[in-house]
Amino acid sequence: MLGKYLNVLRKKNPLVHCITNYVTVNDCANILLAAGASPTMADTPEEMEEIVSLADALSVNIGTLSEQTLAAMHRAVHQAGKLEKPAVLDPVGAGASALRTRTARELMDMNAFTLVRGNISEMKALAGLAFRSHGVDASAEDSVTADNFPEMLKVFGKIAAKHHCIVQISGAISLLTDGHRAFVVRNGHPIMAKVTGTGCMLTVLSAAFLAAFPEEPLEASVAALCTMGICGEIAFSRMLPGEGNASFRVRLIDAMYNLDSETLERMAKYETF
Amino acid sequence: MLGKYLNVLRKKNPLVHCITNYVTVNDCANILLAAGASPTMADTPEEMEEIVSLADALSVNIGTLSEQTLAAMHRAVHQAGKLEKPAVLDPVGAGASALRTRTARELMDMNAFTLVRGNISEMKALAGLAFRSHGVDASAEDSVTADNFPEMLKVFGKIAAKHHCIVQISGAISLLTDGHRAFVVRNGHPIMAKVTGTGCMLTVLSAAFLAAFPEEPLEASVAALCTMGICGEIAFSRMLPGEGNASFRVRLIDAMYNLDSETLERMAKYETF
Amino acid sequence: MLGKYLNVLRKKNPLVHCITNYVTVNDCANILLAAGASPTMADTPEEMEEIVSLADALSVNIGTLSEQTLAAMHRAVHQAGKLEKPAVLDPVGAGASALRTRTARELMDMNAFTLVRGNISEMKALAGLAFRSHGVDASAEDSVTADNFPEMLKVFGKIAAKHHCIVQISGAISLLTDGHRAFVVRNGHPIMAKVTGTGCMLTVLSAAFLAAFPEEPLEASVAALCTMGICGEIAFSRMLPGEGNASFRVRLIDAMYNLDSETLERMAKYETF
Repeated sequence: MLGKYLNVLRKKNPLVHCITNYVTVNDCANILLAAGASPTMADTPEEMEEIVSLADALSVNIGTLSEQTLAAMHRAVHQAGKLEKPAVLDPVGAGASALRTRTARELMDMNAFTLVRGNISEMKALAGLAFRSHGVDASAEDSVTADNFPEMLKVFGKIAAKHHCIVQISGAISLLTDGHRAFVVRNGHPIMAKVTGTGCMLTVLSAAFLAAFPEEPLEASVAALCTMGICGEIAFSRMLPGEGNASFRVRLIDAMYNLDSETLERMAKYETF
Repeated sequence: MLGKYLNVLRKKNPLVHCITNYVTVNDCANILLAAGASPTMADTPEEMEEIVSLADALSVNIGTLSEQTLAAMHRAVHQAGKLEKPAVLDPVGAGASALRTRTARELMDMNAFTLVRGNISEMKALAGLAFRSHGVDASAEDSVTADNFPEMLKVFGKIAAKHHCIVQISGAISLLTDGHRAFVVRNGHPIMAKVTGTGCMLTVLSAAFLAAFPEEPLEASVAALCTMGICGEIAFSRMLPGEGNASFRVRLIDAMYNLDSETLERMAKYETF
Repeated sequence: MLGKYLNVLRKKNPLVHCITNYVTVNDCANILLAAGASPTMADTPEEMEEIVSLADALSVNIGTLSEQTLAAMHRAVHQAGKLEKPAVLDPVGAGASALRTRTARELMDMNAFTLVRGNISEMKALAGLAFRSHGVDASAEDSVTADNFPEMLKVFGKIAAKHHCIVQISGAISLLTDGHRAFVVRNGHPIMAKVTGTGCMLTVLSAAFLAAFPEEPLEASVAALCTMGICGEIAFSRMLPGEGNASFRVRLIDAMYNLDSETLERMAKYETF
C-alpha cells in the first residue's frame, strides 16, 4: 500500500517550507531533496505569508526559539490554516521548559496542523500528563509499552479528535492516531537515537508525504514514518567496520535518496486496528 | 589559464568573511578550508567594520534573514566598499518574497559588489524581468537556452555595467558578464541540485578566488565557477553503489580539498566571446 | 589513568547544555552523542535557568553572537554558577573584534567557569597580551614554543588562579593549568585545522568529561583534550585516497563513537609538571 505515496511524492516534487532549528536544518534540507521534495528554510516573519503561499506544505519545529522564529511560526501556521495546506508540528523539548510547553500548546491550539509528532516525553508534556524530561530525548521511563498502550491510545486519540489532527508518538514502537483509526509502526533502529536530527528529519519528511497525498493524511503519515525507519535500517546494514554515528547519518540520507517503492512496501512494518 | 588562480589562492590563504544563511553555513566554511582559504562567519552588526577590515573578501548570502543579519549586511557591504575589498552577493530566493527582492536590490544599489551571482529565477527577479519562483531553486521555465541567450546576455550585461560588477547566472549552462566581456561555463553535474548549498558554496568560493586575484575579477570568477563544477563532476564520478546526495556532498568538498591546478586546467569547460 | 574518565562518561550519559555558534552546532551535537553524552542546544534567554537546571554541564561558545545569545549566555552562566555545575567557555574569535574580547572577559569575570579554552591568539587577547588575529584561527606568530613556554605558563597560571578555573591553550602542543599544576598534551593532527569546528567540538566534549568527573576537573579536561586529539589521529589514519577534509570530519566523529578506554590510555600523550 505505502509504495504509491513515495512514487507520488517523487513525481510531484512538492515545495516544503520549514521553520526549524539551526542544529539539524542542513540534514532536514538534504533529506527532503533525497526524497524528491524541495525545501525552503526561512523564518523572517514578514515573508511568511508569501512563502507559505508558494509552498505545498509547512513544517514547524520548535527546537531553537527566538522572538523572530516565534512570530514567524504563528504567521506561517495561520497562513497554512487559511490556505488549507498540510502542516506538521514537532514540539521539540516540550516539557523541558515552560516556554517550550506553552509554545507547543499555543501553536496546537491554532488547530491548523495536520500532524503533531514528537517523542513520548514531549507528547505527554503537551497532553498535560506526568512525564520526565531528558532534554530533547525521550526519557526511558516514559516509553510506550504493551501495558500502557491502550491508555496512551485513548489519551492521544482524544487530543487528535479535539485538534482535528493526527498525533504521532515516535519511539521503538511508534503510534499514530487521528482519534478514529490507529496505526502502530515498528520500523527503525536504535542507532537513530545516536544522531541528532532523526526526529527533525522525520518531521519534514512527513510534511513532504502530506504534500504529496493531502487527501489521505493518516496513510501518508504512516508512509513517512515507515520510510524514515526503513532508511535507518538500511543505513545501519550498510555501515562498515570502524564507522560510527557520523557515517550512519550520511548513509541515512543516502538510503532515502535510493529508496524505491518496492523496498518500502517490502520492509514496512505496520499494523492498523 | 585558470590553474594559476587556484595556486595563488592556496598560497595567499585569504580570510573570507561570510554573512550567510544558517542552513548551509557549515559546508561554506568547510569548502573554504578545502580550497585553502580561512572562513569567518559572523553577523553581529557591531563588529562588522572590524571583521571586514581583517578580511580579504566579503561574501553576503540572503538565504535566511533577520533584523540582525540585515543590519550586519549593510554595515559589512559599506565597509567592503569603503576599503575596496572584493565582495560577492548571493540573492537567495529573490522573487520568492518581496523582502528578498527588496533586500537584494538595496544591497546591489550600494554598488560595492564585485560579483552578484544567482540562479536564473533569482537574477530575473532582481532585474525586474518576468520569472517563476520555485522557492530557492530555479524554475525550469526560466532556464537559459540557446534561444534566449543573446537577450539574457544583453539584459544582464546592462545590469553589470550599471552596477560596475560581474553578473553570473548559474545553471546547466552558466553565464558571466561584466558588461563588456562574457564567459559561458559548462562544468557541473545535475546531482548538484540534489544537495542544499552548492550555490552557497560557489558564492563563498568566488569570494576566495576574488580575494586571491582582485586585479582580474572576471577571470577569477570564471575560475571559481569552473572549480565548483569540476568538483561536482569529480565527486559524482567517485560515488559508490548505494551512495546518494549525502555522500555526494562529502565527496564534493573532498574534491575541492584534492583539486590541483593541472586538473582544473584540463577539465575546465568555458568559452569567451 | 585517562581511560576511566571515558568509561564514566559513557555510563553517566550526562546532559550537556550548549549555547554555541550556528556554524558547527550540528557537529557539536553529534560528537556529544558519539561520546555517550546527550546534547541540548538552545539560546532563548527565558528558558536558560530551567534548561541549565536539567543539565549536568554547560558549554558556552561565542562564535556567533546576537542580543539573544548574549543574554542567554549571561543567564545560563549565572545559573550554572549558582548550582555549581561544570561550565566551559570557548572565546571564539576573541581579539578579532572589541565585542568578542569584551564578551569573553565579561563572561570570564563571572567566575563561574570550570574551564576556559581557546587557541593561543584568543587566549592572549583575553589576557591582554599582544597578539595577531587571523579571524577565528590562531596566528602562526602567536604559537606556543619551547622558548615562550615558561612565560605562557606563568601568565595563564595567574589567570587561572584569579578566576578559579582551568585555562587551556590548544594547538600543536596544548597547555592546561589551574594555576597550581600544569599539563602538556601532544595529541592531534594538523588536518584538524582544515575542518571547521574541531575547537568547538573539543569545548563541548570537555563539558561532557567535566560532567562525568566534576571532582577532578583538571584530569577530566586533560582526558577530553587527549580524546579529541586521538580521534583526530585515528580519523586521519583511516582516510582513503581521494578523501579530504569532509571525509575527515565524518571519520573524526566516527572515531569518537568507537573509541574505547584502552585505546585512549595507549595513545594519550601528556606530561604533567
